[in-house]
Amino acid sequence: MAHSKYEYVKAFEREDKLLPNTWIVVRVDGKGFHKFTKEHQFTKPNDITALQLMNHAAAAVMKEIDDLTLAYGQSDEYSFLFKRNTDYYSRREVKLASVIGSLFTAHYVLAWSRFFPDKPLTKPPAFDARAVPYPSIENVRDYFAWRQADCHINNLYNTSFWALVLKGGLTENVAMKRLSKTVAKDKNELLFSEFGINYNDEPEMFKKGSTLVKELKPFTKESRVPIKYADPKYPVVRDDGPDHVIQEITRQETVVTELHCSIIDEAFWNEYPQAVQ
Amino acid sequence: MAHSKYEYVKAFEREDKLLPNTWIVVRVDGKGFHKFTKEHQFTKPNDITALQLMNHAAAAVMKEIDDLTLAYGQSDEYSFLFKRNTDYYSRREVKLASVIGSLFTAHYVLAWSRFFPDKPLTKPPAFDARAVPYPSIENVRDYFAWRQADCHINNLYNTSFWALVLKGGLTENVAMKRLSKTVAKDKNELLFSEFGINYNDEPEMFKKGSTLVKELKPFTKESRVPIKYADPKYPVVRDDGPDHVIQEITRQETVVTELHCSIIDEAFWNEYPQAVQ
Amino acid sequence: MAHSKYEYVKAFEREDKLLPNTWIVVRVDGKGFHKFTKEHQFTKPNDITALQLMNHAAAAVMKEIDDLTLAYGQSDEYSFLFKRNTDYYSRREVKLASVIGSLFTAHYVLAWSRFFPDKPLTKPPAFDARAVPYPSIENVRDYFAWRQADCHINNLYNTSFWALVLKGGLTENVAMKRLSKTVAKDKNELLFSEFGINYNDEPEMFKKGSTLVKELKPFTKESRVPIKYADPKYPVVRDDGPDHVIQEITRQETVVTELHCSIIDEAFWNEYPQAVQ
Amino acid sequence: MAHSKYEYVKAFEREDKLLPNTWIVVRVDGKGFHKFTKEHQFTKPNDITALQLMNHAAAAVMKEIDDLTLAYGQSDEYSFLFKRNTDYYSRREVKLASVIGSLFTAHYVLAWSRFFPDKPLTKPPAFDARAVPYPSIENVRDYFAWRQADCHINNLYNTSFWALVLKGGLTENVAMKRLSKTVAKDKNELLFSEFGINYNDEPEMFKKGSTLVKELKPFTKESRVPIKYADPKYPVVRDDGPDHVIQEITRQETVVTELHCSIIDEAFWNEYPQAVQ
Repeated sequence: MAHSKYEYVKAFEREDKLLPNTWIVVRVDGKGFHKFTKEHQFTKPNDITALQLMNHAAAAVMKEIDDLTLAYGQSDEYSFLFKRNTDYYSRREVKLASVIGSLFTAHYVLAWSRFFPDKPLTKPPAFDARAVPYPSIENVRDYFAWRQADCHINNLYNTSFWALVLKGGLTENVAMKRLSKTVAKDKNELLFSEFGINYNDEPEMFKKGSTLVKELKPFTKESRVPIKYADPKYPVVRDDGPDHVIQEITRQETVVTELHCSIIDEAFWNEYPQAVQ
Repeated sequence: MAHSKYEYVKAFEREDKLLPNTWIVVRVDGKGFHKFTKEHQFTKPNDITALQLMNHAAAAVMKEIDDLTLAYGQSDEYSFLFKRNTDYYSRREVKLASVIGSLFTAHYVLAWSRFFPDKPLTKPPAFDARAVPYPSIENVRDYFAWRQADCHINNLYNTSFWALVLKGGLTENVAMKRLSKTVAKDKNELLFSEFGINYNDEPEMFKKGSTLVKELKPFTKESRVPIKYADPKYPVVRDDGPDHVIQEITRQETVVTELHCSIIDEAFWNEYPQAVQ
Repeated sequence: MAHSKYEYVKAFEREDKLLPNTWIVVRVDGKGFHKFTKEHQFTKPNDITALQLMNHAAAAVMKEIDDLTLAYGQSDEYSFLFKRNTDYYSRREVKLASVIGSLFTAHYVLAWSRFFPDKPLTKPPAFDARAVPYPSIENVRDYFAWRQADCHINNLYNTSFWALVLKGGLTENVAMKRLSKTVAKDKNELLFSEFGINYNDEPEMFKKGSTLVKELKPFTKESRVPIKYADPKYPVVRDDGPDHVIQEITRQETVVTELHCSIIDEAFWNEYPQAVQ
Repeated sequence: MAHSKYEYVKAFEREDKLLPNTWIVVRVDGKGFHKFTKEHQFTKPNDITALQLMNHAAAAVMKEIDDLTLAYGQSDEYSFLFKRNTDYYSRREVKLASVIGSLFTAHYVLAWSRFFPDKPLTKPPAFDARAVPYPSIENVRDYFAWRQADCHINNLYNTSFWALVLKGGLTENVAMKRLSKTVAKDKNELLFSEFGINYNDEPEMFKKGSTLVKELKPFTKESRVPIKYADPKYPVVRDDGPDHVIQEITRQETVVTELHCSIIDEAFWNEYPQAVQ
């Protein structure tokens, strides 16, 4: 049979399982988003709707993959954390990265028209992805701290840059030169003295990015049960025929919560211990 | 600065450049498409529209990435071939796989409503991806032969299976048992004797899958030029004001051509030498 | 210059740094030692001198490489543990494995004639090597427990097998069949009832293998110093000329200690915390 | 059984098969040989005996491993080429590198006293090793050209440097400065005008390194055979008892030939086509 004759080519594929007993982070990054945001006229320095669309796509990925416990996004990137002992796709590096990248893309494109009803998606976006194993909780926390520190640095820069361009009337080149060699303190002062902007009052989502965690929340629904099997724990709402009642049953469900807090601070990790498992 | 303190986590990322001087194949595969095709009620054994949507998404990827020279798709998978000396994404395995998977997904989702105007995309699809280097042209050809042989085997099976179920009224389980241990010849006979189907007459796209190649094609457009710079090679259509004429200029453009032929046979590779560069 | 024209071939080498912040174990294994031990007529089931030569070579490797904190050997294999943050050879997998394999081999061959003065090394041995990262202390301890459990299983089997052959007069084939499907208890009984051997009384080195740890030990040496710089902490042994004295100076030095204890038990790790750093 | 409980640690080992259908080169490199050659007082710039010992060890490795078809050495390094389809150690990168490194080391150490009868090996050498796959014959030839070009460059430099130091009486530092920024032509002139050395007359082994190839050579041995089975192809030397004769039988054997020619030139590859298989 012709089949077996060619099948040898499968052996050229590399085995790529990530080291067991490590925490895997998958990060998706917009490909050529400078151009993409121009083409679709995103508001500068931050387009709230576009960030909300990112958060929506990330939350959908979180809901679909049980083993994800934490996600963090800013600008055109999102990082997802697997629990330590995950065996999702047998921990295969390329599969993990490509599937999460694909799922994220699908939800982003599918939801576009809901978030931007008046702005057609003329050219679809693409996201590259990578998967990196971290051997300790400290490494994991430092990874997320790294991304949030990056968010802060970029957002302060971008807020200053676009203030100079949009409000100060500078060209992009002149604005860039103006900001070169400034440190954080200089940018804060520039924003305040020249544009009356107190950087601390900027929206938390812009300054801190978005963090998604999973929480178990109770939810209540009415359920029709035979009278003799009614659970005394739950209130009976009403009868429903001679042998049944409607009870108000309470269950637990996993919900994805969006936060805009510091994930560098200890407090976050104490409040959401389930974020690193 | 907080930044540098955390940046060490970058070093946990593996360097993953694929061997130089090899041909890289990236294959995307539908994730859980059994469920996806059920949910969206694809026609069995082959949904022409769904296959055309796959071809559309693949052609868009081909057009966007210059270094791709060949693509082959069947069922819920598509393989893309890079030219030998590509330096796309520095040949990084995970980047190549994830970007192509993401781009393919984006075009698939974006074009869905155009291909299925009456069928909403209720749950977005995802594709995993892999990138494999092949060191010789023979290996490359055998890779594509492997996928086409796989297409043939699966399509003959599926055509028989769904004939037994949809036309023969068998349950899926009984149909599966009926086909177990049959060889190609048996299935051909079953199709013909019981359902009057001559497998050879089935559409080529179903039996052979779809192959995308790039070709340089001339195209003609009218162009307004100053009379004194008019190129004598091209016909003048008409005058346009005192100093200009409209000429019919011919240029070359790269087009993606869809084929449904054998790529196991020598003939294909002789006719499209540009498919492996 | 001819040089640069060919230098591109360096790029075909893979980057192979092992994951940071993990404990790396390098294990060397005798290649074809079944034949090697036959050729050099090693005593069965255990050749004390050969094991001592293995221990000698391993101790030499330990002394030469500061970042090694623990080694464990049995039969024709030896495992070496690096401290977590080692940057030896930039943590390059193939370099670490090959250098330790080479060093071990060199010391083994060089010391052969000292350990076996009457037995020429007619055919040199070779050892393969591997390097594996472990992300947690528990994994590290389980790795060494795995090797020691393996030692126990093999030694009990070999002790029984060679008793049957050398004392019981069975052929190797019959001895093998006799032992198939026996469990540890059966072998203990067989040794005792048929050969009067109490397995527990076998040498610890055979049953437990050999463990090498590093310890700081004080050592004393005579040193000639000018009288005026003599350190009052150390005793003066005698005068040496008008201006100098000989003092007995005490220093710390790292020594490699050989043990034959359980490394599965908690006690070992409590007593030698420096073994995993 | 305790065994299985710990065995999970095996899964932390990476699968490391090198790409099929490629030519694998393993190179061993002396570790810290600057110090090693000082300690053992090697003649500068080239110690013939030390080079011959390298060649001896490499030839032993060539003889032991059938799938090696070519080796090239210079200074303290040696490269070994496997045939394309080798399945030695399942093409596992770390095994290939470490076994060849270990075997080479063993032969080097074992033969030391034969090559240097008056110079004890006071500190054993170590060699690191690497294994790199090359997908085309051109890449393979460029690899070996790279090493030979490197030999030429280093040897011209070293010959000049040690002439300045040993014959010219310069310190090493001054000699180094003298040579900085000189090109090949300058060094040739310096050697000739100041020391009367015509670099072209230097030994080929120093200028070109050593190349080992395998050749099938006939060899003849006397063999005692029953008269009635004597093979008429071979001459009978004498009778040996009533029923036997001694015949001179000719067989083929693989011999390792040492060359000191250019392996950059086409001629070598034409003359020894078996060097790349």
